[in-house]
Amino acid sequence: MTNPIKIGIAGLGTVGIGVVKIIQQNEKILQARTGRKIEIVAVSAKAKNKNRGVDLSKYQWESDPISLAKRKDIDIFVELIGGHKGAAKDSIVAAIDTGKDIVTANKALLAHSGQELAEKTEGKNKLLRFEAAVAGGIPVIKALTEGLAGNRLTRVVGVMNGTCNYILTRMQSSGLNYEEIFKEAEALGYLEADPTLDVGGIDAGHKLALLASIGFGTKVNFDAVELEGIGQISIDDINHAADMGFRIKLLGVAQLNGDGLEQRMSPCLVPATSPLGQLEGGTNMVMLEGDHVGQIILSGPGAGEGPTASAVMSDIIDIARGVRLPTFGQPANILKEIQPVKSNTYAPYYLRLSLSDKPGALAKVASLLGDFGISIDRMRQYAHADDHAPVLIVTHATEPKSIEKALANLPKTGVVHDKPVALRIEPL
Amino acid sequence: MTNPIKIGIAGLGTVGIGVVKIIQQNEKILQARTGRKIEIVAVSAKAKNKNRGVDLSKYQWESDPISLAKRKDIDIFVELIGGHKGAAKDSIVAAIDTGKDIVTANKALLAHSGQELAEKTEGKNKLLRFEAAVAGGIPVIKALTEGLAGNRLTRVVGVMNGTCNYILTRMQSSGLNYEEIFKEAEALGYLEADPTLDVGGIDAGHKLALLASIGFGTKVNFDAVELEGIGQISIDDINHAADMGFRIKLLGVAQLNGDGLEQRMSPCLVPATSPLGQLEGGTNMVMLEGDHVGQIILSGPGAGEGPTASAVMSDIIDIARGVRLPTFGQPANILKEIQPVKSNTYAPYYLRLSLSDKPGALAKVASLLGDFGISIDRMRQYAHADDHAPVLIVTHATEPKSIEKALANLPKTGVVHDKPVALRIEPL
Repeated sequence: MTNPIKIGIAGLGTVGIGVVKIIQQNEKILQARTGRKIEIVAVSAKAKNKNRGVDLSKYQWESDPISLAKRKDIDIFVELIGGHKGAAKDSIVAAIDTGKDIVTANKALLAHSGQELAEKTEGKNKLLRFEAAVAGGIPVIKALTEGLAGNRLTRVVGVMNGTCNYILTRMQSSGLNYEEIFKEAEALGYLEADPTLDVGGIDAGHKLALLASIGFGTKVNFDAVELEGIGQISIDDINHAADMGFRIKLLGVAQLNGDGLEQRMSPCLVPATSPLGQLEGGTNMVMLEGDHVGQIILSGPGAGEGPTASAVMSDIIDIARGVRLPTFGQPANILKEIQPVKSNTYAPYYLRLSLSDKPGALAKVASLLGDFGISIDRMRQYAHADDHAPVLIVTHATEPKSIEKALANLPKTGVVHDKPVALRIEPL
Repeated sequence: MTNPIKIGIAGLGTVGIGVVKIIQQNEKILQARTGRKIEIVAVSAKAKNKNRGVDLSKYQWESDPISLAKRKDIDIFVELIGGHKGAAKDSIVAAIDTGKDIVTANKALLAHSGQELAEKTEGKNKLLRFEAAVAGGIPVIKALTEGLAGNRLTRVVGVMNGTCNYILTRMQSSGLNYEEIFKEAEALGYLEADPTLDVGGIDAGHKLALLASIGFGTKVNFDAVELEGIGQISIDDINHAADMGFRIKLLGVAQLNGDGLEQRMSPCLVPATSPLGQLEGGTNMVMLEGDHVGQIILSGPGAGEGPTASAVMSDIIDIARGVRLPTFGQPANILKEIQPVKSNTYAPYYLRLSLSDKPGALAKVASLLGDFGISIDRMRQYAHADDHAPVLIVTHATEPKSIEKALANLPKTGVVHDKPVALRIEPL
């Protein structure tokens, strides 16, 4: 193929404009690499006359993304509107119906409707590509779908929400509380309009569900992701974890577990000296584990104009080069429906308790933990001004449900104040 | 395509057997991912009756790899013999001449004959793929050729020889000398038959030249790589560098520099807290820097049966899936012949000198450095038993040729014993 490949871009926010810039600035390189001209035919966004800092005058303007999607003169419809329903979904469906290949950065939409859209696209022998939906500029979809395709995947682990990682690492470096750093992140524009998407782990959960589908050949099942946000993490947890050689990360883990698939996105402790433990600020990191390759780690900017646009471009370039793969690496109609399972793999846990400062209190707690088969690896009690002693416990590897039961029973000891915090220490 | 894809494997060493194992063990997964059966038709190696721990009885045996390459019943010729001439090259040429796609792990061959072989292959409209030639299991060729294809690459940096990294990190952890750890690595079977390939930086230099070609769209030019091995690194250097917050790595750097291409593989200092500084043992790490994506870091096992076979498989799977890209990401006949340039980008340097313990010695050195425009950032003099004082200097960013001139002139001061050591501190 040497004819130009023609694209329509719906959505001219940060990422859309980033894509326009790459196509304009790197025209010759792109042509050398694809053997074709990549031509923007038409664009669409809400406000036509907004100054976006790039020259859009040569492109047709569509006020409606669905009209853009239906244009006969485009080969690829690039959806950068966002949102898991409404215009994003409707325009993608229109593009599929009219025989376009699709490139999107929309993790929410794919997490909710990925299976449906993949089946629809593949039924038309077209492509639905989404490198930019996971981990920004890191080519992790490609690494998983293609680079490690010889492997039976054993585990996918990742820090995939830069805002949460920013908050957690800033708490550590500043010594300030969650609430204060949350406000700081908000002021810097790092948070989504609905911040729960970030700090509630939803956005990262979307990404995990997509990686799990590719890695394990299963239908995307975002609803089955066990979600826990970072709102409960206190500066004490951060500091105590650091004292014991750990960092707290909003960590996604997906793995096959017996006959089921375990997917969880929750704050976990990881060794401070591990690559994940060292991860600072808005950087993302994904660890892919395969039966033959072992552990591969990829890291890089998880968001932003250039990185995300770079990922969109890799999909556009693949299509221009004639690379044609199913959405999730194997045909959507053979992806397995798999039983979601709650994590039951053993791991050490970090427990933070506030104990009554009276004789026998610690003994009661230790005894209760013992009753649930939880054995203590390390314990620290900190100096305290009031009559509540902060006590930290690192357990030996324990079944998650034992921890749950112990947490439910701790109040009955009569010596534990506040709600105990329990965080998994993920083996890496 | 749903017909089986048929392969012939030449070379049944560690990697060849790893490939056989993956194809046997992951048959169903591979079929789901490619839509086809991947079928080994024939194999070739020196000794037919050696026990290799896998069942080869169903495959045709060829005692001559060239005969294997010429078989009419294979689609892909997988060259895992090794060596930059002889049977490896001859059999690849035979495979090209008879219209096969080629997958190889042979960095030496491609570093020396990549341009010639790529032109020959592409002239026949066939493929020459080599993911396994660089950084073992890390899908770095794919990340660079495809994942970051939207970017103008600005720099490629990497630790790509696991044996050297093992030696350097073991020296640090054990406090033992280069010579002792070299013997240890030899006993563990980590070194090539000709150890210069590893410790002289040649093997890593091959890999760098291949990455540079893809990244910058230039003809592979291994001869232009400035090579410096790790043999001169003493335990004192390791310790002193650590004292000042650095690690010593055999670091490859390729970047465009004015009108030329700079490629060097040499021991450098990197911050101890940086991802490259943290890299331990045989792990490889590559940092890819693009104009839009920023820095992407990939790490993983750089050698070994499973990881290298995983990389070979990714090429086989791509071909089975119908992915057809030029060898170096753009057609070989448009790759540019580019002027090699010696590094002239400024960087701070680490200098280790052995100074006469007499008044004015340090002043003479400082004055000489000043004469060459080299200004001192940090300096340490260590306690010493004899009359030679070890002195360490970290300079401010300096032009490499100033350092060269200073080194040439230091002996003239009459106060410097032994050969001074100068290592670049690579800005990351």
